[in-house]
Amino acid sequence: MADWDAQQYLKFEDERTRAARDLLAQVPVAEPRHVVDIGCGPGNSTELLARRWPQAKLTGIDTSADMLRQARERLPQATFIEANISHWAAPAGSDVLFANAIFQWVPDHLAQMKRLLSALPVGGALAVQMPDNMDEPSHVMMREVARLPQFHGKLAHVAEARDHLPNPGVYYDALKPLCARFDIWHTVYNHVLDDAPAIVEWVKGTGLRPFLDPLEFPERKEFIEAYKARIAATYLPQADGKVLLRFPRLFIVAVK
Amino acid sequence: MADWDAQQYLKFEDERTRAARDLLAQVPVAEPRHVVDIGCGPGNSTELLARRWPQAKLTGIDTSADMLRQARERLPQATFIEANISHWAAPAGSDVLFANAIFQWVPDHLAQMKRLLSALPVGGALAVQMPDNMDEPSHVMMREVARLPQFHGKLAHVAEARDHLPNPGVYYDALKPLCARFDIWHTVYNHVLDDAPAIVEWVKGTGLRPFLDPLEFPERKEFIEAYKARIAATYLPQADGKVLLRFPRLFIVAVK
Repeated sequence: MADWDAQQYLKFEDERTRAARDLLAQVPVAEPRHVVDIGCGPGNSTELLARRWPQAKLTGIDTSADMLRQARERLPQATFIEANISHWAAPAGSDVLFANAIFQWVPDHLAQMKRLLSALPVGGALAVQMPDNMDEPSHVMMREVARLPQFHGKLAHVAEARDHLPNPGVYYDALKPLCARFDIWHTVYNHVLDDAPAIVEWVKGTGLRPFLDPLEFPERKEFIEAYKARIAATYLPQADGKVLLRFPRLFIVAVK
Repeated sequence: MADWDAQQYLKFEDERTRAARDLLAQVPVAEPRHVVDIGCGPGNSTELLARRWPQAKLTGIDTSADMLRQARERLPQATFIEANISHWAAPAGSDVLFANAIFQWVPDHLAQMKRLLSALPVGGALAVQMPDNMDEPSHVMMREVARLPQFHGKLAHVAEARDHLPNPGVYYDALKPLCARFDIWHTVYNHVLDDAPAIVEWVKGTGLRPFLDPLEFPERKEFIEAYKARIAATYLPQADGKVLLRFPRLFIVAVK
């Protein structure tokens, strides 16, 4: 997959950071020694961690060189490492693992969460947030467009690739036996965006990427137009002309 | 309706207070002069407000004498007043109106929210949380039992009484024109309870009350048994024997 575009991702930084703040607010660890931001992106979530725990050693990991470059500029006091979570073990002494909007990209993420949680010391916490929006029109319509005859050849596998998240009971059964305390909830945000095309801009930074990456320029434009038309027909303007982007996210805080 | 039973309500205090804490965390008012806890109940939410804003004048209002008695014992420094929100106007100078789990009981609550919001000074905030669980099995099954032949006569009107909440777009269109900032979201908690009967105990403190109040003792027992059986057949135990009570709540923070 092409590298992440930090500028595209940061277009909606305030809105995107809300979920990270909400996750952090529920982590009941007072004075961690070493906090790791898994999938740190351009460092916006890492910055929240630095503010909450200024005394802690802080490490960010990500697979994107572009994201890590931005993160290092933003937070020179933290350590940023290029690593893939699937092949990564938390350094000894880490006691908070913070994973905002990353595990949805990780194959067999439940097994990975179990592995990371098992290695934490007693009192340590794994905190996870994942978009759970595969059944929202914004995402249903990506898959619809990908199945149109002109895209089907290149995109059918993408439309099937990202699984729906399991329901909370599945996480509970898998992770609760490893924990002293386990909390799982969804929050469904309603992001106020200027208009339907702004929804397309939003998902361009994340969910739409796997659909656009395999396409050449003219196809890509055609895909976006077909998608944009469906979005505009579904996300109708409010009285003031804005649109509400309904965005469900799953949160997990597991304390050893 | 019979008076609220503060002991029954407080059985699940930690779980119930989580929503109030989550609501409070999103209120962006740094130094209010006068904070009002609308529907203060036994004072658990009022206590959160006192902790966040120790300098502010603090008033709680509620319709229940039993709840107010408990609240006064808990927080002697605050003022508690018996009042019905529908006929109540915020005292001049109030700049935070905090309404945790109350507006769902108020007739035409959207009009009441508009009225209260209109009277706030610039920079003041109205913060609201309401259960939005009418479509959850826990509540669908109350109405189902109420429609059984033996209860229908006394309870049909109760089963129809509480409306579903409007969707977020309706609140947005009604309240946003009055606000500088408007935020609306749902959180769906998963409360870990010991077993299915614990779910019945939980709703006895709130949603089940209007169904039980019109019944005499032998009917009441029969209603609870019929309801309990349905709950047990639907909320199946997790691997460790506990049950998860899925509980959606709607949050609104409106800043003038």
